[in-house]
Amino acid sequence: MRDEHIESSNGKLGILIPGMGAVGTTLMAGVMAARRGLAPPIGSLSEYGAIEHRGEVRNLRDILPLAKLDDLVFGGWDLFEDNAFEAAAHAGVLSEHHLEELRDELEEIEPMKAVFDPEFVRNLEGTWVKEAGSNWELARAVMDDIDDFIESNDCDRAVGIWCGSTEVFTPLDEVHLSVEAFEEGLRNDHPKISPTMIYAYAHLKKGIPFANAAPNRALDTPALVELAERNGVPTAGKDLKTGQTLMKTIIAPGLAARNLKMDGWYSTNILGNRDGAVLDDPGSFKTKEESKLSVLESILDGDQQPELYGDFDHRVRIDYYKPRGDNKEGWDNIDFSGWMDYPMQLKVNFLCRDSILAAPLVLDLALFGDLAQRSGMSGPQEWLSFYFKSPQVAEGERPVHDLFEQRRMLTDTLGDLAARRPALSDTSEESVREPAAEAS
Amino acid sequence: MRDEHIESSNGKLGILIPGMGAVGTTLMAGVMAARRGLAPPIGSLSEYGAIEHRGEVRNLRDILPLAKLDDLVFGGWDLFEDNAFEAAAHAGVLSEHHLEELRDELEEIEPMKAVFDPEFVRNLEGTWVKEAGSNWELARAVMDDIDDFIESNDCDRAVGIWCGSTEVFTPLDEVHLSVEAFEEGLRNDHPKISPTMIYAYAHLKKGIPFANAAPNRALDTPALVELAERNGVPTAGKDLKTGQTLMKTIIAPGLAARNLKMDGWYSTNILGNRDGAVLDDPGSFKTKEESKLSVLESILDGDQQPELYGDFDHRVRIDYYKPRGDNKEGWDNIDFSGWMDYPMQLKVNFLCRDSILAAPLVLDLALFGDLAQRSGMSGPQEWLSFYFKSPQVAEGERPVHDLFEQRRMLTDTLGDLAARRPALSDTSEESVREPAAEAS
Amino acid sequence: MRDEHIESSNGKLGILIPGMGAVGTTLMAGVMAARRGLAPPIGSLSEYGAIEHRGEVRNLRDILPLAKLDDLVFGGWDLFEDNAFEAAAHAGVLSEHHLEELRDELEEIEPMKAVFDPEFVRNLEGTWVKEAGSNWELARAVMDDIDDFIESNDCDRAVGIWCGSTEVFTPLDEVHLSVEAFEEGLRNDHPKISPTMIYAYAHLKKGIPFANAAPNRALDTPALVELAERNGVPTAGKDLKTGQTLMKTIIAPGLAARNLKMDGWYSTNILGNRDGAVLDDPGSFKTKEESKLSVLESILDGDQQPELYGDFDHRVRIDYYKPRGDNKEGWDNIDFSGWMDYPMQLKVNFLCRDSILAAPLVLDLALFGDLAQRSGMSGPQEWLSFYFKSPQVAEGERPVHDLFEQRRMLTDTLGDLAARRPALSDTSEESVREPAAEAS
Amino acid sequence: MRDEHIESSNGKLGILIPGMGAVGTTLMAGVMAARRGLAPPIGSLSEYGAIEHRGEVRNLRDILPLAKLDDLVFGGWDLFEDNAFEAAAHAGVLSEHHLEELRDELEEIEPMKAVFDPEFVRNLEGTWVKEAGSNWELARAVMDDIDDFIESNDCDRAVGIWCGSTEVFTPLDEVHLSVEAFEEGLRNDHPKISPTMIYAYAHLKKGIPFANAAPNRALDTPALVELAERNGVPTAGKDLKTGQTLMKTIIAPGLAARNLKMDGWYSTNILGNRDGAVLDDPGSFKTKEESKLSVLESILDGDQQPELYGDFDHRVRIDYYKPRGDNKEGWDNIDFSGWMDYPMQLKVNFLCRDSILAAPLVLDLALFGDLAQRSGMSGPQEWLSFYFKSPQVAEGERPVHDLFEQRRMLTDTLGDLAARRPALSDTSEESVREPAAEAS
Repeated sequence: MRDEHIESSNGKLGILIPGMGAVGTTLMAGVMAARRGLAPPIGSLSEYGAIEHRGEVRNLRDILPLAKLDDLVFGGWDLFEDNAFEAAAHAGVLSEHHLEELRDELEEIEPMKAVFDPEFVRNLEGTWVKEAGSNWELARAVMDDIDDFIESNDCDRAVGIWCGSTEVFTPLDEVHLSVEAFEEGLRNDHPKISPTMIYAYAHLKKGIPFANAAPNRALDTPALVELAERNGVPTAGKDLKTGQTLMKTIIAPGLAARNLKMDGWYSTNILGNRDGAVLDDPGSFKTKEESKLSVLESILDGDQQPELYGDFDHRVRIDYYKPRGDNKEGWDNIDFSGWMDYPMQLKVNFLCRDSILAAPLVLDLALFGDLAQRSGMSGPQEWLSFYFKSPQVAEGERPVHDLFEQRRMLTDTLGDLAARRPALSDTSEESVREPAAEAS
Repeated sequence: MRDEHIESSNGKLGILIPGMGAVGTTLMAGVMAARRGLAPPIGSLSEYGAIEHRGEVRNLRDILPLAKLDDLVFGGWDLFEDNAFEAAAHAGVLSEHHLEELRDELEEIEPMKAVFDPEFVRNLEGTWVKEAGSNWELARAVMDDIDDFIESNDCDRAVGIWCGSTEVFTPLDEVHLSVEAFEEGLRNDHPKISPTMIYAYAHLKKGIPFANAAPNRALDTPALVELAERNGVPTAGKDLKTGQTLMKTIIAPGLAARNLKMDGWYSTNILGNRDGAVLDDPGSFKTKEESKLSVLESILDGDQQPELYGDFDHRVRIDYYKPRGDNKEGWDNIDFSGWMDYPMQLKVNFLCRDSILAAPLVLDLALFGDLAQRSGMSGPQEWLSFYFKSPQVAEGERPVHDLFEQRRMLTDTLGDLAARRPALSDTSEESVREPAAEAS
Repeated sequence: MRDEHIESSNGKLGILIPGMGAVGTTLMAGVMAARRGLAPPIGSLSEYGAIEHRGEVRNLRDILPLAKLDDLVFGGWDLFEDNAFEAAAHAGVLSEHHLEELRDELEEIEPMKAVFDPEFVRNLEGTWVKEAGSNWELARAVMDDIDDFIESNDCDRAVGIWCGSTEVFTPLDEVHLSVEAFEEGLRNDHPKISPTMIYAYAHLKKGIPFANAAPNRALDTPALVELAERNGVPTAGKDLKTGQTLMKTIIAPGLAARNLKMDGWYSTNILGNRDGAVLDDPGSFKTKEESKLSVLESILDGDQQPELYGDFDHRVRIDYYKPRGDNKEGWDNIDFSGWMDYPMQLKVNFLCRDSILAAPLVLDLALFGDLAQRSGMSGPQEWLSFYFKSPQVAEGERPVHDLFEQRRMLTDTLGDLAARRPALSDTSEESVREPAAEAS
Repeated sequence: MRDEHIESSNGKLGILIPGMGAVGTTLMAGVMAARRGLAPPIGSLSEYGAIEHRGEVRNLRDILPLAKLDDLVFGGWDLFEDNAFEAAAHAGVLSEHHLEELRDELEEIEPMKAVFDPEFVRNLEGTWVKEAGSNWELARAVMDDIDDFIESNDCDRAVGIWCGSTEVFTPLDEVHLSVEAFEEGLRNDHPKISPTMIYAYAHLKKGIPFANAAPNRALDTPALVELAERNGVPTAGKDLKTGQTLMKTIIAPGLAARNLKMDGWYSTNILGNRDGAVLDDPGSFKTKEESKLSVLESILDGDQQPELYGDFDHRVRIDYYKPRGDNKEGWDNIDFSGWMDYPMQLKVNFLCRDSILAAPLVLDLALFGDLAQRSGMSGPQEWLSFYFKSPQVAEGERPVHDLFEQRRMLTDTLGDLAARRPALSDTSEESVREPAAEAS
């Protein structure tokens, strides 16, 4: 990171969301509620985080030029024509009470028609999809959508975040290896180019930071890495770390810190939302499972410590179970051994809410992605690993999964960015709330 | 930490244990078993830990002059005349199989008579106790025991670790405020001087590092801090972090990293060993409860983040429950909220084994305490906070409870110590096992 | 039970509730909602139960003359002036949505002033209490309230059910031994006469069936048993069996059926409502604990099977824990052994809703109490043991705690009552809803 | 049941076990241990059960002529040549301590060569199997084995119990519809005749009661029912009800008794023994799943109570998980609703031991099967439903799954049998332990 200027956060920031489902609409509702003081944006580091800066613990907003909540504008694409209110009501995440309070504002957000390919998401059927001749034309249509959105909303900048469904597992193919091959593939309707890739391509092409909240392969292809770096656009992915995997990357480092031996880790998940229905398709499940399995093998490193981690049984189950609705429940059984190889057990039952855990991460990714771009950073942002089940790293590197290592990477980078700025005479919290005070 | 020479680890190291109960005898048995290849010393950082050193991940034993397992000699004091085999059999921690294998070696370890005062531990009755006129004479008797042990076992050095019962809560008193007042109190049989303090005093007086595995106030009094610093002796305490509290200091930092709001944390523990019986006395329970409650308030800092951590209900229960025996079981219910204040729950059921988790920590404390002394360090060793529920810190400092912060402090210090040594030409694991190779 | 006529259920039935708190108002709201088709009265045997009758499985309502939901009228007494809507809102059991729908109807129910004595419930302070010279006058005032209620609501009959707080444990005293001693005590303000007893006395005196939903000693005194029998009034008690104890009386009979050996049963409860606050007083807790402990000893009978049930550790904890609100959570750990004495464990985590489980039981008790009276039954109704933690039985008898034995007793009695009636030509569900069809 | 004479239990009773694995060898070891007073036969109704008889609660052994433990002789068949000691050691159910104590006696029990067909159990490979030309010859060989066993062990009577693996699901076929078709199929090596059927056939043909501890279709075919009735042999099956399903048939009747509405029941099982490996084959899993799913639908009857039980989501998972070994662990999440449809949750975590729960059931089935035969009963014994996940019933009947209904059926029949006997002058427990006292 070079000691450069960070551009101002003034002006409106568009947040573009392909897949305006449970996560996307919960994000929108929560930002609207926070702006109006109706509900707090809990879970967001950009709103609540604090780091050491010049000898004091300071709130991030006081020391970094993050876009203000008041300056965010939401848009997106979806397979269904429901506006954000209807989609949120359908998702069943938020209370009637909250939905009613925010109804008017949510109803104004209507999805643009989606890029959809049933080959990649088999258990859904889209009714609000672009009809275009080729993938190339679809990508162009998305770029036009972006331009229109920015112009009609008078945005200064934008960021995009894929919040759609898990796609079928796509092995790396020739077509993913370079921008040229990829663009050729777009023109030829190559079957290994998924909708996520088309959205990612369109954003990067327009110079807009893009993050991937799902486990789909997209940004993590040589072609799109190349494009991001060529166009100076930061990217981040993939697969938001929310429920059971979040707990794994908290607990496993703890057991490893104590040099306890792992014998087995059995995880089962029950969930009853659209996600669960999509994951009932084995193709989509494989994509998700890959993402979920890898975290432990990295934290409990059998190469480094074969006696402790060389041989443990790791199972992950995801089951669609209707009564759970959008809530998600995980049950983990962890078998491990201590001194003289005596066995112990730990059971973790997590009654969580998927979209409630995910929404603040999407907000952080949008704000930090925008900050990164204004700070001159491009390509995969490893310091955002904190947010992902499968952090994308530079080629040849191994991802870090330990949540506490990830936190350190994140706060180190934020600290470095804060250090670039001149010491402000007055950065009290109050000042942050008055946009005028920050005008450059 | 100054860049000084670290003295050689050659020669025998005595490990002196006031309170040869479940933890102490499990430690002894495990070291014996590890030496004979019968069972691995899992859970010990000194045996399994690795840190970055000169660009590589290296095992601690390869880069630091730690005492070898083969050089350890065990001794101790107890209220009951049982030798280590009998005490271990009574404790019910180890399998019959392990006990039989190690019987001969364990039987050789016979306790010295204990310093005991029923005012401080009400639910036990000692039958193997020193009868001496005053506390001063008791302290002298312990010092004589130490000298005898060192001489008769041909030890080069020793460390002491209190592994006895939780004493009744003792408020800080005038008598604890200076070495002079303390020694005066010893002579006068001052009622606020507990057996733990007498052992600690005797060790420090003899220049022997001392650690406190129980929550009793002892080393954390100005008098004994002063004595430790005056005599150049490192100390560490207090209350080993093993079961439920260990899990708390793993999980709470994870939730805090994600800026989730804490609503309540309810913890209950069931245990059926002598510890449980002792804690049935409200005086002893208060000491333990203080130690257990403080950890969350520090990690989830309500002063720093009042909106998230300013108001949560934290309850801790410990119940004696006979069927659990030496095993300990914790059940935690954690209520927290995310985005827009939607509530979630996490339940953790930990079927743990107290002494199995504690024994490797005692080994580490012995080896690191000895290392610290040979490295010229004295007084409370904050970098050993990793091991304790109530880490003792320098006056005016706040203890760190987050396990991952504690791990960083620990590995940073070990890394600094390793950096003091000249790069060795050959530090393969084999070389470590040949004492000659390490002669300075 | 003699083969007598059962009187008609026609006309209005008053349900009088001393203690219009969470349980009482949830009952009222649920009956109102069921009448209007807004929510189903799940959990009520009188509404959903079916038994074999003349060779067919028949709904209870089709074969027994139970009072109709449309004919119920609610009234009650409380320490606070809140009407049923306010009290329900304060209790936090029902959703805003349900409260709003039923607001008008609930607001009409205003409590009569309560009989209150802070000696018996120490953690509450009443503000809407009768001021009368003596207990005798208080009892008269309650009888006047009853008369007024019946007259002003045009009731044909009434039943009363204590739904107030747990009182301090009251040992059996001389004053409880006969109607005469009791009435003498009322006049003298004897300190061992509690408010529950005064309400019970007033109801029985007026010939109105009375049930006790709390663990307070009242109906189970010789004095009130005598009065009930003398006045031909059925009674039932005590302490509704809802959460953890319900689960115990389900699971324990299962383990006993399989002749498994019990080693220990540890139960902890967390709850955050007014009940929890009341139980923070040790006097009230003792009353509750007595009620909770006895169930296991009866099902797992150590006299009958000393090898299996002669020696197990049974612990019950109740902890006030604010975040739980009116919901109640239990965690049970059950240690038992099988073949050759090998140990197993069962853990039960029950996230229940106290008032939601209790309300349908109160409805059943009201309807069955009324039925019993119309069928000529009086005194303690053992066949209603199904509903209670501490079933009241005839002197010298042992209560049955096994839920399945209790179910059998209940359905046997209902079957006998149904058998008294002439076979009806048309007892379709429709016919039941037309009162005319049932006119005698 | 006719009021007939019950034949004497004198003489030796052979217990023949096809499949001498974990369950079979645990049974043998436990009976040996009980005979020698080394460990109690907990979990067995025949040993610990008591029922009302002539106005008193009496132990079963005191009022029924059950075979004595001292008169039992064990034999069996297996795919592997291991004797009972080796097989028990391999199974990992019993402690080293118990195995050593019983070693000599167990080693004497050597398996006869098994009938094996890899088409029916795909994940095992047998090495100790009969080589015979046809199924007919295999059946003859089993009959010869039975004759040899009875003769060489001087048995008066015998019973057989299939304790082998779960076979692949076999749909009912023409060949199963009559004895004639079946015998024709044996001669033709019909592919739908499984090893279990061959064993069952051989036993019934020899007039020996047979029970089926596994979910395999065998006794529950018209052919074998016909044969059992024709030869006057009692049978019982199928699939022992031990772990999670046992808990289901305890808890579900409890919730149903309270008329609570079922929304969903999610069950997952982890186990690491040979059973688990066999169930990794989808064919075997289907057989097991069928057996496990049906229990709830019968207890929570959607036809009878569509509002409460007409629509719930029931999922059952079984996962092979190595660290669990022969122990089995179940986790159930139960979603149900009460009053006004408010939801509640119950979680059950069962750390059980499969063979420890199964062995006493096998003992009961052997003793009760023998008793039934001596009492003149034949064909499927519905009163033994208590022991099975899929109780076999007379054609056209629905099985009873509620454990408490099953218990009632069982004790009613035992009571009727006891009532057939003349009142004995002295049936004290002592007398039972002295075989001489019962000699006829």
